[in-house]
Amino acid sequence: MIKVVLFDLDDTLVDTTKLAERARRNAIENMVKHGLPVDFETAYNGLLDLINEYGSNFPHHFDYLLRRLDLKYNPKWVAAGVIGYHNTKFTQLKDVRHARKMLIQLSSMGLRLGIVTDGDPIKQWEKILRLELEDFFEHVIISDFEGVKKPHPKIYQKALKLFGVEPEDAVMVGDRLYSDIYGAKKVGMHTIWFRYGRRRSEELEYRRYADFEIEDLLEVPKIIEKLGGKGEEGSNKEVHADR
Amino acid sequence: MIKVVLFDLDDTLVDTTKLAERARRNAIENMVKHGLPVDFETAYNGLLDLINEYGSNFPHHFDYLLRRLDLKYNPKWVAAGVIGYHNTKFTQLKDVRHARKMLIQLSSMGLRLGIVTDGDPIKQWEKILRLELEDFFEHVIISDFEGVKKPHPKIYQKALKLFGVEPEDAVMVGDRLYSDIYGAKKVGMHTIWFRYGRRRSEELEYRRYADFEIEDLLEVPKIIEKLGGKGEEGSNKEVHADR
Repeated sequence: MIKVVLFDLDDTLVDTTKLAERARRNAIENMVKHGLPVDFETAYNGLLDLINEYGSNFPHHFDYLLRRLDLKYNPKWVAAGVIGYHNTKFTQLKDVRHARKMLIQLSSMGLRLGIVTDGDPIKQWEKILRLELEDFFEHVIISDFEGVKKPHPKIYQKALKLFGVEPEDAVMVGDRLYSDIYGAKKVGMHTIWFRYGRRRSEELEYRRYADFEIEDLLEVPKIIEKLGGKGEEGSNKEVHADR
Repeated sequence: MIKVVLFDLDDTLVDTTKLAERARRNAIENMVKHGLPVDFETAYNGLLDLINEYGSNFPHHFDYLLRRLDLKYNPKWVAAGVIGYHNTKFTQLKDVRHARKMLIQLSSMGLRLGIVTDGDPIKQWEKILRLELEDFFEHVIISDFEGVKKPHPKIYQKALKLFGVEPEDAVMVGDRLYSDIYGAKKVGMHTIWFRYGRRRSEELEYRRYADFEIEDLLEVPKIIEKLGGKGEEGSNKEVHADR
């Protein structure tokens, strides 16, 4: 019997990739508007290269962009970038289509919900609180606190332990085949691969670890009903997978 | 003849102190709302103490607040604080009463305007750009770039050099008697002390360096007319102060 549903956060519940792209575009637009002497495409591509090389949490993107473009340091341009970026991030943060509707359905089915995510704990909590998703979830497990990243089994085992359930009582839903699907399957959980966002054609070698594939989050409650969700009559037999 | 008017930024053009207080209150309120197990007053006073000890640009206020209150680290509470703080900062940033009206009057009198400020260059530019004050100013001089802080003469001399005027052609307007008024007077400029914000009863030993004292920014254009502002007939005699 399925008792617990765990979710990845970025690009599963929260529309992170789209937001980041929009925020970066608005940052560069605002820099150009305030006198950055380079055309939009050159600056935007420079920023993307930088993010590829230094990672998206690197705190000096805009300073380094000026160096990269051989421009003199100018705090006005950096400030313009920061404003464009933050304005977008704070006003356009959105949950993925149907995420909230699905969470309400699952809650009303008596299921217990959790989040299992990598990333900076404060930033991850910021997204959850800004979207007011907090109350749906009994536990939010952030890998940084465990000293590992998904798909390390420790994070999934920690989640199961916190909920006090066996792996076969739990479903993991996520957009990443390696960290979400392969990771959860390794510890014996059910898996639903959400084919969404820019990663949907990556890591396909792990596709065989997905029990289900969906393109709309509203399929999650339906699948859980099929698997024998909590409260379903005649679905209480537990299926023990070979592990 | 007065040709140039220089302004301090924080609590002269931009309402920084009020904003910071409001932002801190909202941060603590949001932390308590999200489960911080301490009453508002205790947490707020803890934050004020922290800021006194570590400075307002210390980047770990909310983490340290939890330590100070002997609470376990919880990124959710830190995120709640960050959200409360930033939401306020981004939506409630305001220029000081009559600042914009005064800047328009001074511009139409043909005066050239500048900002002379301490503080983090990116943050200072953020305030200027967010309030769309940029176009009023020919030069924004930020002390960090000169390796000194106000009242060091270097920053005022730099401003005069950038504008290409003599000290007696320039007026400095600011809320701080030591850094703004004493500093500008030391290099020979005219000075207008704006009695505003929480500092208005501090550093009174430097009050004698203020040529004028005002409580409303709209008095600035009137004073400059009296001093012989640009375009004023019969006011072109230059007064050379003993320096």
